[in-house]
Amino acid sequence: METLEIRRPDDMHVHFRQGKMLESVMPYTARQCARALVMPNTTPPILTASELIAYRDEIQSACKKENIAGFEPLMTFKVAPATDVDEIKRLKEAGAVAGKLYPEGVTTNSADGVRDFKAIYPVYQAMQDEGLILCIHGEVPGVFSLDRERAFLSTLKELASDFPRLKIILEHATTKDAVDAVLSLPETIACTLTVHHLYLTLDDVIGGMLDPHVFCKPVAKLPSDREALLEAAFSGNPKFFLGSDSAPHTVDNKECPCGAAGVYTAPVMMPALIDLFDKHGKLNRLEAFVSEFGARFYGLPLNEGKDRFVKKDWTVPDICGEVKPFLYGKTLGWQAEAKN
Amino acid sequence: METLEIRRPDDMHVHFRQGKMLESVMPYTARQCARALVMPNTTPPILTASELIAYRDEIQSACKKENIAGFEPLMTFKVAPATDVDEIKRLKEAGAVAGKLYPEGVTTNSADGVRDFKAIYPVYQAMQDEGLILCIHGEVPGVFSLDRERAFLSTLKELASDFPRLKIILEHATTKDAVDAVLSLPETIACTLTVHHLYLTLDDVIGGMLDPHVFCKPVAKLPSDREALLEAAFSGNPKFFLGSDSAPHTVDNKECPCGAAGVYTAPVMMPALIDLFDKHGKLNRLEAFVSEFGARFYGLPLNEGKDRFVKKDWTVPDICGEVKPFLYGKTLGWQAEAKN
Repeated sequence: METLEIRRPDDMHVHFRQGKMLESVMPYTARQCARALVMPNTTPPILTASELIAYRDEIQSACKKENIAGFEPLMTFKVAPATDVDEIKRLKEAGAVAGKLYPEGVTTNSADGVRDFKAIYPVYQAMQDEGLILCIHGEVPGVFSLDRERAFLSTLKELASDFPRLKIILEHATTKDAVDAVLSLPETIACTLTVHHLYLTLDDVIGGMLDPHVFCKPVAKLPSDREALLEAAFSGNPKFFLGSDSAPHTVDNKECPCGAAGVYTAPVMMPALIDLFDKHGKLNRLEAFVSEFGARFYGLPLNEGKDRFVKKDWTVPDICGEVKPFLYGKTLGWQAEAKN
Repeated sequence: METLEIRRPDDMHVHFRQGKMLESVMPYTARQCARALVMPNTTPPILTASELIAYRDEIQSACKKENIAGFEPLMTFKVAPATDVDEIKRLKEAGAVAGKLYPEGVTTNSADGVRDFKAIYPVYQAMQDEGLILCIHGEVPGVFSLDRERAFLSTLKELASDFPRLKIILEHATTKDAVDAVLSLPETIACTLTVHHLYLTLDDVIGGMLDPHVFCKPVAKLPSDREALLEAAFSGNPKFFLGSDSAPHTVDNKECPCGAAGVYTAPVMMPALIDLFDKHGKLNRLEAFVSEFGARFYGLPLNEGKDRFVKKDWTVPDICGEVKPFLYGKTLGWQAEAKN
């Protein structure tokens, strides 16, 4: 049977939530990844060093409870109008590696987000000084949904120019324009790609019956956009690496009338990626995409461990805890090798 | 109090369904309209004269049961690969005024639709000979959702050219390209506009939380497309008239995991249109749009009755029977004058 061995990956963008949901979803990521960048849009959000430490403690307690060893959560804080510039240093000392910026109202738990990018220039300055990475949900709220990411790119370019030593990640890019913008900018600017945006177009959401389980922000775009994302993922360009944006919502919250945005990819992350790269004849590009480029951009050592996968059909479960995983009920051509 | 009197309208595209749903939804249309063109995508569909007669009987029985007098259903049949050319004459004699063509699989109950438009040229020929109107759901299945209507326009142009005496209606246009195509074609080609497509863009479906209650086929498009639809509705050009495509689905079928396509506008039809035309300063264009252009295109006499509306806030109910109406919970500036 065909097998694949790759360096243990990092997921550079994941939502673990809190409480019972955290305990339910974190193990899927922790069993596949050595590290994951944990988003701070909890309720309340992670704004201070003490909140960051408490959240990391909660994650580590959940790891213990689930008998998970050797997983490292990479901690983040929210870059918001409420962010205290003096807190940046303490956040760094507490172990933060990045701050996440949400424009106001752009996605789940972002009502406290940024409206005026210039108003928090001192925060970016402090982050640049501390060597912290700025992760951005790059959409302009209020703009027509298909144009929101494109509309943000001028701000990205301005930030890149005004803070030439600040590392910035345009998170979960969904458009060809975003890919082109990232390519055009200096090495300080990178871009995460999700699993689901490599699979989906807007048609998967609205093209047949309405499907809430593939609805996310930014929404999946045109076939030509997905093509550009695939090209970027397969390109071997270190600016593009995995950040799954795995975002669990309970079935009740995903299905109507709630219609929450987010796709829960953690349970299928590696099999879905391997299947996709394999089908495109790009398996040779996968390891760098999931295990090298992200770590290098974050200035982290590459993981030592290796994982093995076998080319053997695996049907994705219909439900994982309270959440429907991406590709539920579908059959993938690869799975993790059973451990004895 | 400001009032408005207008000639009793016709809804040139409505879905009444069958059985209990018919009894629940038909009265909303029948109380506002003198006539409505009833779509034939029932289960099973209306293909023959006897099926058409039976469906009309069912509608008329429902009218009687609901104490509705003076409402005339304009009957249609499905133009499908299964359509018998010899049946066209009998359909006409049974009272059909139009045939409705669905491309295969393009919307609710269209699995039996047309794949090869040329294969049923004898049917169009027979319809042209009988003076029947061809109503088309103008989308090409399989094409990316936002491009489906545009992709159909070459077929529309071909049909217009090959059957110069056949009256064709491009139903529920959603794009500027469709409006432009209809404008460019001879007088035999007209276009219905729905209430909801004059209100919605894709953002209403996917721009915030996912909203299944405004999800329909064809899906609402870009702001520039809606602008073109509004211009067409306000233009006074007789090629553009009301066909609401009011399409009820139970809450269970609209909400997930079903996600059925269709917006139920019948309960709010006239107040929603008056409010919209009023807000755009185009009340003077409303009567022709709802009560004249459609009747003229169908060769029907104008309705004699008049309806009065008052400029007084009206909050749309949250539910009508088992179906959520369009704009539920919203407040409109106009309502029908109470009858004593």
